[in-house]
Amino acid sequence: MSEIVWLDGQFLPRDEARIAVDDRGFIFGDGIYEVTRCVDGRLFEGRRHLVRMHAGLEGIRIAATHLPSDAELLALHHELLARNGLTVGQATVYLQITRGAAPRAHQFPAGDVRPTLFLSATRITPAESLRATGARAVLLPDLRWARCDLKTVNLLGAVLAKQRAVEAGAQEAVLHRDGVVTEGSITNVFGVLDGVVRTHPVGTRILRGVTRDVTLELLHAMGQPVEERALLVEELPLVSELFYTSTTQDAMPIVLLDERVIGDGTPGPVARRLGAAFAAALTDPARLT
Amino acid sequence: MSEIVWLDGQFLPRDEARIAVDDRGFIFGDGIYEVTRCVDGRLFEGRRHLVRMHAGLEGIRIAATHLPSDAELLALHHELLARNGLTVGQATVYLQITRGAAPRAHQFPAGDVRPTLFLSATRITPAESLRATGARAVLLPDLRWARCDLKTVNLLGAVLAKQRAVEAGAQEAVLHRDGVVTEGSITNVFGVLDGVVRTHPVGTRILRGVTRDVTLELLHAMGQPVEERALLVEELPLVSELFYTSTTQDAMPIVLLDERVIGDGTPGPVARRLGAAFAAALTDPARLT
Repeated sequence: MSEIVWLDGQFLPRDEARIAVDDRGFIFGDGIYEVTRCVDGRLFEGRRHLVRMHAGLEGIRIAATHLPSDAELLALHHELLARNGLTVGQATVYLQITRGAAPRAHQFPAGDVRPTLFLSATRITPAESLRATGARAVLLPDLRWARCDLKTVNLLGAVLAKQRAVEAGAQEAVLHRDGVVTEGSITNVFGVLDGVVRTHPVGTRILRGVTRDVTLELLHAMGQPVEERALLVEELPLVSELFYTSTTQDAMPIVLLDERVIGDGTPGPVARRLGAAFAAALTDPARLT
Repeated sequence: MSEIVWLDGQFLPRDEARIAVDDRGFIFGDGIYEVTRCVDGRLFEGRRHLVRMHAGLEGIRIAATHLPSDAELLALHHELLARNGLTVGQATVYLQITRGAAPRAHQFPAGDVRPTLFLSATRITPAESLRATGARAVLLPDLRWARCDLKTVNLLGAVLAKQRAVEAGAQEAVLHRDGVVTEGSITNVFGVLDGVVRTHPVGTRILRGVTRDVTLELLHAMGQPVEERALLVEELPLVSELFYTSTTQDAMPIVLLDERVIGDGTPGPVARRLGAAFAAALTDPARLT
């Protein structure tokens, strides 16, 4: 079966989905995106992704005027999963909105330009085998811009960091700026120090991950002390656990950071409890749309 | 006559030029670009643009393997101008190269993915009327990433700054970071302080503009004292002149920065002399390819 995507108002085969060279997504990276986890055809924390999508649109000032309503977007997600045979098992839906196509000029185009809306759906295999052993990460400087809170497609900083991680035989890069750990190249980062789980507070230096927020809820529910306070780079040698969170990987323990073994080199107790908590959360009707 | 562009190995009408939704330019802003000024069908400093294009490709590690040779690229520029009736008068050729289309993953795609190459040509009207009065600019924080030396299509920081300038009734934004003036949203910035022309030195915080380098050459040739040393924000009230340089606008005097009149509110002597020098340079055979 040919993969079906949604582009500019219609479902069509992926290899027929093409955008204008003048699309501001292609020319300027002028757009935002979301990736939503799907379980048996339902969206995990789908409404939170829509809330963040709107925050992203407002952040870069793309008007939602010509976009489908939230209810229509949710229906599009569901329909896309169905058309791709993804109503059983796990998948992600990728959504991207750009400012649309217009003659090249940096400022916003004059007139009523229609944003480009693209959605696609992909089957995923949960990362259980990596979770069992734990992941490797490398520590890299955070080169990104000053608005990391916006989930835009200006992703070259993340691309280059992730590439360096992969070349080092690692799964993720842990980024630092001005002496503090910010987040991963495509994840949020948590550490356990003196029994307290620490992660960078919300602000312009990190993306507020949906999975980050779910992680905080699950930690609170299990009575785990948590502090939204950035880990310092100099504190990294002291952490008993380190893990990253993402839409597709939940909470993934890091057991090796560069050449440093974290804890005893196996997934620690907080990460393991989170793994079980996520497994339950993924089928919690209150979190599924 | 329908506008003709070059995309992936062929000339075709602009409205038929479409790229795959999986192009990493669209998904990650994973590409670089150049804009070359053209005079009567010849490229102004065309070889410098090619040198910088290669630096950009190396900077984000796109292999030139599948790309046309420099000689072929120059020929493509010329042919594109001819096909669009732009061999008389002034124009720009826009060139963009992305890492190509591949299933979405931040790290570089495995295998031998062919980069996307796009060129288009557009007639321009030299900015002489604005140059006569001088431009307005606004001072804004520089929010961009740590590799501003690379001319990539991750341009959202520039887009948002330029938009704010336009909304303020200005033509450009002058950006500052850590107390120093870096550059404009899409230009390099120069100031005259105590008779010395100052501009930010080459490094990761600015793009090394081709027009910036030509400007330095022209200033040296006219015996003007020049220092590649960043202007401090606190020095801005002291400058006698301020101007920005770009491929399409040469050296453009700024006469109003926010509410502050620069000099006597008209283009100053250095900018005026540069205007004349650029007019001559644009027809200097040594600079045309």
